Amino acid sequence: MRLFTPIDLGTMRLANRVVVPAMVTRLAGEDGRVTDELRARYLRFAKGRPGLIVIEAMSVHGGKSGPLLRLSSDEFIADQAELVRRMKEIAPALKVVPQIIHFLKIARSGWRQKPGDLSKEEIRAVVRQYGEAAERAGRCGYDGVELHMAHAYTVSSFLSRLNQRPDEYGRSLENRMRLMTEILIEVRARVGPDFPVGVRYDGEECIKNGYTLSDSKIIAVRIAQLGAAWISISAGGKFEDAVKKPGVPIYPYTGYSGDRCMPPASYPDGANLYLAEGIKAHLVASGYTTPVVATGKIRTPELAEAVLQRGQADLVGMARAMLADPDWVVKVASGRADHLVRCVYGNVCKNLDENFRKVVCYLWPKGALNAPDSPDTSIPSWKTTGALEGRESAGRVHLSWDGAADAEGIYGYEIYRAAGAGTFDHVNSVKGTTYVDRDVVAGVAYRYFVRAYDFAGNRSPRSRELGIALAPAAGGAAGEGT
Amino acid sequence: MRLFTPIDLGTMRLANRVVVPAMVTRLAGEDGRVTDELRARYLRFAKGRPGLIVIEAMSVHGGKSGPLLRLSSDEFIADQAELVRRMKEIAPALKVVPQIIHFLKIARSGWRQKPGDLSKEEIRAVVRQYGEAAERAGRCGYDGVELHMAHAYTVSSFLSRLNQRPDEYGRSLENRMRLMTEILIEVRARVGPDFPVGVRYDGEECIKNGYTLSDSKIIAVRIAQLGAAWISISAGGKFEDAVKKPGVPIYPYTGYSGDRCMPPASYPDGANLYLAEGIKAHLVASGYTTPVVATGKIRTPELAEAVLQRGQADLVGMARAMLADPDWVVKVASGRADHLVRCVYGNVCKNLDENFRKVVCYLWPKGALNAPDSPDTSIPSWKTTGALEGRESAGRVHLSWDGAADAEGIYGYEIYRAAGAGTFDHVNSVKGTTYVDRDVVAGVAYRYFVRAYDFAGNRSPRSRELGIALAPAAGGAAGEGT
Repeated sequence: MRLFTPIDLGTMRLANRVVVPAMVTRLAGEDGRVTDELRARYLRFAKGRPGLIVIEAMSVHGGKSGPLLRLSSDEFIADQAELVRRMKEIAPALKVVPQIIHFLKIARSGWRQKPGDLSKEEIRAVVRQYGEAAERAGRCGYDGVELHMAHAYTVSSFLSRLNQRPDEYGRSLENRMRLMTEILIEVRARVGPDFPVGVRYDGEECIKNGYTLSDSKIIAVRIAQLGAAWISISAGGKFEDAVKKPGVPIYPYTGYSGDRCMPPASYPDGANLYLAEGIKAHLVASGYTTPVVATGKIRTPELAEAVLQRGQADLVGMARAMLADPDWVVKVASGRADHLVRCVYGNVCKNLDENFRKVVCYLWPKGALNAPDSPDTSIPSWKTTGALEGRESAGRVHLSWDGAADAEGIYGYEIYRAAGAGTFDHVNSVKGTTYVDRDVVAGVAYRYFVRAYDFAGNRSPRSRELGIALAPAAGGAAGEGT
Repeated sequence: MRLFTPIDLGTMRLANRVVVPAMVTRLAGEDGRVTDELRARYLRFAKGRPGLIVIEAMSVHGGKSGPLLRLSSDEFIADQAELVRRMKEIAPALKVVPQIIHFLKIARSGWRQKPGDLSKEEIRAVVRQYGEAAERAGRCGYDGVELHMAHAYTVSSFLSRLNQRPDEYGRSLENRMRLMTEILIEVRARVGPDFPVGVRYDGEECIKNGYTLSDSKIIAVRIAQLGAAWISISAGGKFEDAVKKPGVPIYPYTGYSGDRCMPPASYPDGANLYLAEGIKAHLVASGYTTPVVATGKIRTPELAEAVLQRGQADLVGMARAMLADPDWVVKVASGRADHLVRCVYGNVCKNLDENFRKVVCYLWPKGALNAPDSPDTSIPSWKTTGALEGRESAGRVHLSWDGAADAEGIYGYEIYRAAGAGTFDHVNSVKGTTYVDRDVVAGVAYRYFVRAYDFAGNRSPRSRELGIALAPAAGGAAGEGT
């Protein structure tokens, strides 16, 4: 698979093209430092041997910001150097970079600082702070650095089409790109030519009057011209359409743009791929080979590989899929894709972040702070032969089954469904032994089976296959409604 | 071109694959009747010989609703029969269908009726009203009927993932589709097998928690199963994210979903094409050949043709492009694409509708209620040889030129721009003799020319070509910002 071939991001050679993008964990200390819990999370990711891990966004500026990492002064270097050293002990070929971020002030009252509120001196400070933090990244032993220019944060807010600052930092596209440009120049000058610098930014803002692919493809060329070693494409995640809750600081992933940033179950796979594809095509047409990372509900090995084969991007980032199963690369590369613990895109992780709680995966065993990691190879067994019953009621299919048993512990149950003569698809995973499928429609014959999986990802045999044929809409509805 | 080959929508054969989708005009009488102005608008469209014209949405239910057409009782038949007859006098091969709509109540206070507010009896009335209006469409002499199931209106609100009605009309996808299903069955039963019935609905709601392609492709199969003769794909246009203005009824095209419904200039061409493409592919995979109409900022003959060649859709709908130039088909088919008056997607038409004013195109001569229609073939001439000056200032390019003269009248000026070694692209049209281009970026050499066009679409020779090379960002920004 092309997924598991090496690629160079500037001077940094990745062993494969799977990236763990920056994900907030809320496991850092309130003082901005690495905690044991945070270190354990990243060591677990390292064990899964992706090509690149981007450590969660850490602030380049001082000031309190809750349990988020910082790289705003030299005091943070030692902890992070230790983190990098230990990750590489586990996976010597792994590359690790931090994502560095500047954000504007927000208040519980709902007030928030906007691009127009910054003095020229404050803008110069942002540029300098990015440069200093990038330099510190090198001193930590990181392999490079990723500049956060996406979502609701400072650089993205300057890039926004809503940035109507009247001076040379607003209104025209050139002016909106000025802060980004100055930061990239400053960072590249500070770290030197051999330290790879990547950029993550939005391919579309996904808000009213926000920028779209028309601007983002031009922004990509600028980023490439300024010597970025990779370009990672996100979408949305803005304050403008966020849902306001009284007395709580606004969270930029609660509106439509938040859905687009982390597409929930209702979205098709690869919902944002057209953005990476459009940007990649424009870079190529403009003569730039800068590698592009595509993200956004890419979950299956088939889709991840297809993205590379089709040339839509050069690398694939998987955040929630890797949180659910950090061993994604190891399992897929060794032909054990059927052992993947598959993210169901229920966004429990996102909701935990929104509520200032430690970010864990709903699919992990209750109370766990990390994905299980077990050498167990024995498979779970069904308590009852032929478990799985079902019935249709009010347009839904209600499934239930007798549980499975496992030497170590049952982790959950995967529900598979096929429509008509189609192939089986994983539609959800649950911890209990019942499931209500609301997404079925009349006139279709469905087939289901269930599999139990244990802490190590071992699967039980399939349950018996259950067929449920729903009556056609035409007959039923005609009799009822007309 | 495949664009100009015939296609069958059920029993209705179109001469070509270009559709004028339903567009509100606000030219109807307050009594819901055809006025002289409204008739003139559609006769003008007919003269342009598209394959199909969908007359603007007309309500199936009684009640006042401003200057919008109605088909809610037999009293409206005579006027519309006359309209159809006169359109076909002009273009005998043209097919004409009305779009019929039911909408829920909205109040100036901000209150609006939602799916959960309707009694079963009221739902049955909606179904019956659609059936009766469809039957009336046949009696008017229309060639078929299109059922409006998109945007902020009744059927779309039932289809919405936000429809949490607790009975058999809400929550599960099957239940959300029930009203749509009942209407299609009722309409098909009333009009008989030979009268083609099409459906227009949203490929994505484009609102938080709204449905996406995951649901809309299943909805398409249901529509096909129920015998629809075509499926026309729109997007967004919802109340949920609309901007509220005190004392004015909420307008469902003012939020992000409104932008997605009528993508403005900042969107790339064909911004919603992935929806039609995904739906078409799923229909084909499910064994249905129902023709699909793609819409959403399709403006150039090249893109329109490519949509068909790639199999993304079977027909192309162009609303704003055809409003700007109803002669699109005639001009492109006769090799005079360079005579097109090109929509600039400034959405002045949308703003007029939003403000309850008659909908006209900004590119038409001032005061005109229709696109000009002139036999003039003489081209405009420049008053000054080599008109076109320009300079760069604060990240923008300021252009100015001496005007052109024409025997009949100058309609406007088209601005063309090429970046680097690229080809010239039409970036905007204006009525005056100056233009500020905010979309240029540093480090790029741009070339511009301007052409004047007259009421008949005749073009002046190109102005002189102006080259403006913008200084590289790196040098400038490095000197300034760091």
